[in-house]
Amino acid sequence: MSLDEHLRTVRLVDHHVHGWFTEPGDRASFEQALNEGSTGPVTSGFDLPLGMAVRRWCAPLLGLEPHASADAYWEARAATPYDELVATFLDAAGVAHWIVDTGLTPGLVTDPEPRSEVLRLELALEQVLGETDVPGAFRERLAAADVVATKTIAAYRCGLDIDWSRPGDADVAAAARASGSRVVDPVLVAFGVHEAAERGLPIQVHTGLGDRDLDLRSADPLHLLPLIRAVDVPILLLHCYPYHRNAGYLAQAFEHVSFDVGLAVNHLGDRSVQLVGEAMELAPFGKQLYSSDAYGLPELHYLGAHLWRRAMAAALADWPEDDAARVADMIAAGNARRIYGL
Amino acid sequence: MSLDEHLRTVRLVDHHVHGWFTEPGDRASFEQALNEGSTGPVTSGFDLPLGMAVRRWCAPLLGLEPHASADAYWEARAATPYDELVATFLDAAGVAHWIVDTGLTPGLVTDPEPRSEVLRLELALEQVLGETDVPGAFRERLAAADVVATKTIAAYRCGLDIDWSRPGDADVAAAARASGSRVVDPVLVAFGVHEAAERGLPIQVHTGLGDRDLDLRSADPLHLLPLIRAVDVPILLLHCYPYHRNAGYLAQAFEHVSFDVGLAVNHLGDRSVQLVGEAMELAPFGKQLYSSDAYGLPELHYLGAHLWRRAMAAALADWPEDDAARVADMIAAGNARRIYGL
Amino acid sequence: MSLDEHLRTVRLVDHHVHGWFTEPGDRASFEQALNEGSTGPVTSGFDLPLGMAVRRWCAPLLGLEPHASADAYWEARAATPYDELVATFLDAAGVAHWIVDTGLTPGLVTDPEPRSEVLRLELALEQVLGETDVPGAFRERLAAADVVATKTIAAYRCGLDIDWSRPGDADVAAAARASGSRVVDPVLVAFGVHEAAERGLPIQVHTGLGDRDLDLRSADPLHLLPLIRAVDVPILLLHCYPYHRNAGYLAQAFEHVSFDVGLAVNHLGDRSVQLVGEAMELAPFGKQLYSSDAYGLPELHYLGAHLWRRAMAAALADWPEDDAARVADMIAAGNARRIYGL
Repeated sequence: MSLDEHLRTVRLVDHHVHGWFTEPGDRASFEQALNEGSTGPVTSGFDLPLGMAVRRWCAPLLGLEPHASADAYWEARAATPYDELVATFLDAAGVAHWIVDTGLTPGLVTDPEPRSEVLRLELALEQVLGETDVPGAFRERLAAADVVATKTIAAYRCGLDIDWSRPGDADVAAAARASGSRVVDPVLVAFGVHEAAERGLPIQVHTGLGDRDLDLRSADPLHLLPLIRAVDVPILLLHCYPYHRNAGYLAQAFEHVSFDVGLAVNHLGDRSVQLVGEAMELAPFGKQLYSSDAYGLPELHYLGAHLWRRAMAAALADWPEDDAARVADMIAAGNARRIYGL
Repeated sequence: MSLDEHLRTVRLVDHHVHGWFTEPGDRASFEQALNEGSTGPVTSGFDLPLGMAVRRWCAPLLGLEPHASADAYWEARAATPYDELVATFLDAAGVAHWIVDTGLTPGLVTDPEPRSEVLRLELALEQVLGETDVPGAFRERLAAADVVATKTIAAYRCGLDIDWSRPGDADVAAAARASGSRVVDPVLVAFGVHEAAERGLPIQVHTGLGDRDLDLRSADPLHLLPLIRAVDVPILLLHCYPYHRNAGYLAQAFEHVSFDVGLAVNHLGDRSVQLVGEAMELAPFGKQLYSSDAYGLPELHYLGAHLWRRAMAAALADWPEDDAARVADMIAAGNARRIYGL
Repeated sequence: MSLDEHLRTVRLVDHHVHGWFTEPGDRASFEQALNEGSTGPVTSGFDLPLGMAVRRWCAPLLGLEPHASADAYWEARAATPYDELVATFLDAAGVAHWIVDTGLTPGLVTDPEPRSEVLRLELALEQVLGETDVPGAFRERLAAADVVATKTIAAYRCGLDIDWSRPGDADVAAAARASGSRVVDPVLVAFGVHEAAERGLPIQVHTGLGDRDLDLRSADPLHLLPLIRAVDVPILLLHCYPYHRNAGYLAQAFEHVSFDVGLAVNHLGDRSVQLVGEAMELAPFGKQLYSSDAYGLPELHYLGAHLWRRAMAAALADWPEDDAARVADMIAAGNARRIYGL
């Protein structure tokens, strides 16, 4: 089997993903969902690298020519029964297992199967903020969770450049009392992460690009150095762009650090080839994972996979086929199965 | 028409440019002008990517072979009447409209036509520092200005990582009293920018590379986040290299943020292909603009345009021709016409 | 001679290198040495871009096919007398002169010939910390050193974002008294660097990637701006990745700043083509140098040279052959000979 064929058919573990919308939505919400950064109305979701990639790669799955116009794409999509649309893109994704962050707008999305789940630490903390013994209640919450990993969105709440030392329970209790209903206090964030590490749970960390609530300066994974030195559970750096070279450095330096370029692989569209190439510069092959970080649009569950397959084929084109296939399999699924114990 | 041909002929709006020297100058000043970073004498301006690009792309316009030697280039240039030299390069640039920053060494350069003008905020502030009512005098200065945009060189004066909140008039007056003749106080800089926003004027911001007076750490456009959140007029991030990926993120996240890779497109020479490719990674196509940031040498007014045309042809090579032409037209001129109301 | 042939045969000055191991070592130590970042046991040194490059480019020098398996490579290596192995790789490196940092594990490695030496400033300081007059003793140590340059590993000791002003002797003496046996005090580090400058010695500075002891945030060469402005001896920025574009900017802005992408050129394996391309974006051709930063494995002394030759051939492919050869010669050896007065 050629490398291209191998990469077209290898079954993936998408190690960080969300559900797809329960309803097909209107065109405005569709175009909005193509822009990760903006939380307001956008000029045109199709006039983005991701929008071009949807027209190029998703259109044929709806029976259109590659690069069908935006109008034609929307028309064909709207004419397809939503169940069929979802099935088409999910099947074409070629994903054997999904590791799902269910904490983002759970009412609006449904969940892929078969799946394992990830616990959002800040959300879990917010659910126990009213308890008398917050540290104890959080530990119980964590012990009861049926998940293969945890996730922190510290980057959105307080930035990654915080004091990552492990806080005592008294400090946590005081911070909880002083806190509103939203966890933004670095003491609470650090507490959640250290408790996850204490239980031996892998920790996914949002780094790099996101929406406008983010201060991208504080989302550089290099800020995690003190945390990385303090814990020994697997740390999974998510997204990373435009700091993916920094992530590769951390993955080489620390055995328990791995990373992906999910989210970016979709939003960069056809430029994901260069992105995946840069991700392959420094990191050990056993420390990289595939993810789409798809949310809402089933197109994204498929497109992330397709763009990654295409980019890996380019990145490995000069390698002998058996080497290339072995490394592709590691990043496609093997590393995730090992790290999450699937 | 093929995409290459379309890009060779599309008329541009150069949305950030300076004039060309009134005098042809000697060889030392010519070579000095090829080095953006250094303000002292340089070894050889030809031994730079920009110098190589001059020999490759400008030489034929002087009747030489591509890659004519540095000596041959200088000889041919010196033998050409300066008016003719200017006309040759300006015509070849294919620019329909120039948006000119007239604040840089106005005595040494003449101005392109047809043009609109940009007001340098720090310069305008310095012109009213001696007035009794500095805030009021600045507002009058701004009201009287016949410009389509303003520009801040905060990056050179105090860095971009300052307190961007809007200062009160009393604070501005106190800062003005404490100030020498040069505006470096962040209070004055922030005042100027907020006044421009108050009048609805677009704000161009120098970010990224420049000369040695700059602390490049403080020129990352990400530092502008608080300002971006505080105002709603168009913000135009200029140059951006090596932070162009950060600029692309901001342009995706905020409807009123756009950017260019001017200046860098010239100084990187033939590597502008990779630069423009990276600039096309994340930003909406409606949020990117062409500029040369040419100053002094008419070669630069032409070369910026040529290198951009060439790089865009490469970036869009896999697209359908009608899509590619439409997006090229947006970045070439359409976005600038919309943002500046030309 | 074609450019490829010219680059294959041009004799190099490797301006920053260490010795090779005195003993061949076992497979575990070999694989460990392929991972720059990790100081602990690693999964597999072959499952790294550098490991792939060893199999691709070094295997043929041991009589194997390109891309021989890891096991086959190790077997052939172990079966080769170590003297012969060293001679094979060192000869194939095509290096005319080595500039050696002898300060890293001098007991474990032997030194290339012919060579000039570099003095590690922090190590030299540590050797005089017990003296009554530390500033005076250090000056004597410096005066007696038979070296062509000095080197600071400030990035590992206190980071590069320190107060780079020149400390007085009283402050140095006080810092020395308060110091343990390891120099980490910024006052001592800055003292060492300024004394080197005072003697007119070039200063090599570790910047960018390294092992896990490093905080990569503090290794950005941009932090050196105040030092660059304060001294006028040659400053040589080493490694630089992922900050090599920042280094290129500094090299353009300041006549006395030069840089290399050594270390990274090896660790990125075949992606060194893109790295060298990016290094060629902004810097004057007279301000870039070749280095391998090889340490321990003689493979690295060869591979750094081979990957650089290959990457330069790609970077210069569109240039006229005489220009390309001239610039290749500058970076290969000429710039180093000029800067170090070889």
